[in-house]
Amino acid sequence: MRTDQPGRPDYVHGYTPRESERLVDQATALTEFLHSGTAFPAGGRVLEAGCGVGAQTVTLARNSPGAAITSIDISAESLAVARQRVEAAGLTNVVFERADIFAFPYPAATFDHVFVCFVLEHLQDPEGALTALRAVTKPGGTLTVIEGDHGSTFFHPENADARRTIECLVRLQAEAGGDSLIGRRLYPLLVAAGLSDVHVTPKFIYVDASRPDLVEGFTRNTFAAMVEGVRERALDAGLIDTHTWERGIAGLHRAAEPDGVFCYTFFKATGIN
Amino acid sequence: MRTDQPGRPDYVHGYTPRESERLVDQATALTEFLHSGTAFPAGGRVLEAGCGVGAQTVTLARNSPGAAITSIDISAESLAVARQRVEAAGLTNVVFERADIFAFPYPAATFDHVFVCFVLEHLQDPEGALTALRAVTKPGGTLTVIEGDHGSTFFHPENADARRTIECLVRLQAEAGGDSLIGRRLYPLLVAAGLSDVHVTPKFIYVDASRPDLVEGFTRNTFAAMVEGVRERALDAGLIDTHTWERGIAGLHRAAEPDGVFCYTFFKATGIN
Repeated sequence: MRTDQPGRPDYVHGYTPRESERLVDQATALTEFLHSGTAFPAGGRVLEAGCGVGAQTVTLARNSPGAAITSIDISAESLAVARQRVEAAGLTNVVFERADIFAFPYPAATFDHVFVCFVLEHLQDPEGALTALRAVTKPGGTLTVIEGDHGSTFFHPENADARRTIECLVRLQAEAGGDSLIGRRLYPLLVAAGLSDVHVTPKFIYVDASRPDLVEGFTRNTFAAMVEGVRERALDAGLIDTHTWERGIAGLHRAAEPDGVFCYTFFKATGIN
Repeated sequence: MRTDQPGRPDYVHGYTPRESERLVDQATALTEFLHSGTAFPAGGRVLEAGCGVGAQTVTLARNSPGAAITSIDISAESLAVARQRVEAAGLTNVVFERADIFAFPYPAATFDHVFVCFVLEHLQDPEGALTALRAVTKPGGTLTVIEGDHGSTFFHPENADARRTIECLVRLQAEAGGDSLIGRRLYPLLVAAGLSDVHVTPKFIYVDASRPDLVEGFTRNTFAAMVEGVRERALDAGLIDTHTWERGIAGLHRAAEPDGVFCYTFFKATGIN
């Protein structure tokens, strides 16, 4: 459930303009919630690793107006979109650089703080990425990681076909080398990467009919839309048949009806180098 | 995951002394968290429906010292234990009465507030129970409901056998007429029972090695112990074989190791009559 885009041809969420638009809508609805509690002090040098199209960058920069933010991504195309968005927001505390987490151009201990959101879920070696990020963090500096966990999803009414569509997304992401169940294991990952004082805050999304903005903004336009986005790949891979898929997607939308409920958990982890 | 005991021979958690002790330990660890935000004003008349052995009653009475609490249960034996516990805590604002939610001895509009915790999950007709509870609530009075949801459980490392042991508990509770996935549907249940301004607060339990009290108090001694408590019934019913069961229970305890993580969600719902 990342809102940025790495430069990988097998990126599970795709690169179409419509997908890009959905990712931005999603970020708008969720960003405030996910960023709450995250602000970096004036004068601090902050690295945003894997900024993609900048879905998180505007909020990050706005919440830490005195910080000097370096936002990197491996995709020049994504960086161009991110730069435009930050300029449109009138923010001047971000510089963009093309860089690869696994081949950093930065000397050790360059940054006071590192921020990574919806990136580790797509990497084959998330612990290696954290180790690389830790290496460019100053001693005593902090690392902040935000990830989702598709296995945290549950809803009412219960629907086995809907679960199967989500399972398709999980399997496609696993086949691409990622882990869409990564949220739950941020604690052991950060500890294994050598960070100390690791603290995890679950960010639980609860949606019922009394929260119509979330029914549209999360259940339908973020989560169901994300699952629907892998339809062709799931069918082509033979992970599911068309009828089960259709029933499953209908089941996800059923949870957005007035007597439906939808739940999902993001996780935010912080650690000190 | 109730901490009280209804007078039903098919009560899934059983009635042994050791089970009773576990339920109290569980309540001690969780009660503060589940009750946070719940306090009733001085002079208010409060009904606690299904108090069982009083696992919630002491905290309820302590957090609302000026309220006059009536705690009822269908089991005289449970009420005796509850009364002892409340007396031992030096609390004088609770009276205990034997009563059945579905055959109330109270006139309509008797109580200002009604509190129900870990009760609906065991009832064949939770909506009927809510309707009965609403009938004894004054117009403008409130109903507060707390329930768990076993389907909200996820953990690291992922373990299919551990999921199967949880599924046994869910099925046994369903066969006894209950619904251990009820937490997620409190909103539609309260709305269907005619309550207004229904508001649901998820109470997410997140456990990693940085929270050793929860590792012991929740992952091992509450959740794993609860699942282990239905071992004989699950095996006797042929829901699972012994080897899978043993591996599954080991899997639950594996999530309590230093690199493990365990997640569970309770739900608190309030509504106005």
